[in-house]
Amino acid sequence: MNDTLPLTDRTRLRRMRERGHFDRETIYSILDAMPMCHIGYVLDDSPVVMPTIQWREGDHVYWHASNGGRGVKAWRRLPVCLTVSLLDGLVLARTGLHHSANFRSVMVFGQPVMITDPDRKRVKLSKLIDTLYPGRVSTLRPMTDTEVKRTAVFSLPIEEASAKVRDMGPVDDEGDYGLPIWSGTIPIQMKTMQAVPDPRNPEGLDTPDYVRDLILG
Amino acid sequence: MNDTLPLTDRTRLRRMRERGHFDRETIYSILDAMPMCHIGYVLDDSPVVMPTIQWREGDHVYWHASNGGRGVKAWRRLPVCLTVSLLDGLVLARTGLHHSANFRSVMVFGQPVMITDPDRKRVKLSKLIDTLYPGRVSTLRPMTDTEVKRTAVFSLPIEEASAKVRDMGPVDDEGDYGLPIWSGTIPIQMKTMQAVPDPRNPEGLDTPDYVRDLILG
Repeated sequence: MNDTLPLTDRTRLRRMRERGHFDRETIYSILDAMPMCHIGYVLDDSPVVMPTIQWREGDHVYWHASNGGRGVKAWRRLPVCLTVSLLDGLVLARTGLHHSANFRSVMVFGQPVMITDPDRKRVKLSKLIDTLYPGRVSTLRPMTDTEVKRTAVFSLPIEEASAKVRDMGPVDDEGDYGLPIWSGTIPIQMKTMQAVPDPRNPEGLDTPDYVRDLILG
Repeated sequence: MNDTLPLTDRTRLRRMRERGHFDRETIYSILDAMPMCHIGYVLDDSPVVMPTIQWREGDHVYWHASNGGRGVKAWRRLPVCLTVSLLDGLVLARTGLHHSANFRSVMVFGQPVMITDPDRKRVKLSKLIDTLYPGRVSTLRPMTDTEVKRTAVFSLPIEEASAKVRDMGPVDDEGDYGLPIWSGTIPIQMKTMQAVPDPRNPEGLDTPDYVRDLILG
């Protein structure tokens, strides 16, 4: 696999400033760190930005939705922008406009493809579960045909994509460094807390390792 | 102020399912909990979803950007969707398609207005700082005219807006509850960690209370 993304539209490059990255390693690591994404699409000439859960397999990202929804209709025929962002810190500088935020963010642009073959949908939906919770699918009540039918699954190739990362303290004008103003960074982390078992779980079930071990961010 | 949002397009209601909320209290509390937003706009017929920092004053949300960027040009003449989302938990059920996520999310739709008066821009940009860090602006080196000129500030009325919230454990098919499958919720919290002072701070500066006390989420 090529380390550089074959951008289909070179003008996208202009989107990126000094914080831009196009290497797959950076893009994949951000997609894999955060299941929540925001999907932008156009509906009746107006943009819609919808949060949902994404997962990655190789050089594609995937998401699912209830069949028949407005998003599903739009995604079948119009391009999307799928963005994943993590807020990693707030940066306090010596003047207002040098305040900033540390973050990691990926945008993936393109035309989604709806997966229609029921067997393939089943495999993909299983992958969603096993990506977040390795090994869980084999322990579950299998999906029914009706459940699979009611669910739409979309894939988007990671072809036209870019990442932006800021990861540093404040950058001030040289003349401002002597000012008696506290400056610095407040790091932010997404923490998974102790799991809460469903009160209707049968007695004696152990919490699976993949629940205890889950790390996001 | 009316407690119910006067939706300019009633069809937006159809966007909302059982998890929808239109009361200002819910919408404001979500906007105030998370400074990072995703702004969706249309550029050359394609959607773009860009993360940035938003702040709220009364019944408007605001954001800023470097003047001259592509986003700035688009926002002056085309509608946006500004979405704020918090991932609050992952929900593990007894079959794949009942897995879910707990979240809070707000979408605000509309035509942004660019604030052009320099004094008003200065007031708004100061409000961004003081919203996150109460009292900080009065301690900073004031913004220069050039800094203000280089910055574009946008406002968007919170008129056509809605919130979605999911905050509960798994909901399974009644027949599945007896299965020996661990189900439950993994709560997720955004944590602010200990602040990291800039190594170039003058000696003897105390960390401000608003840095120690900052809570997101």
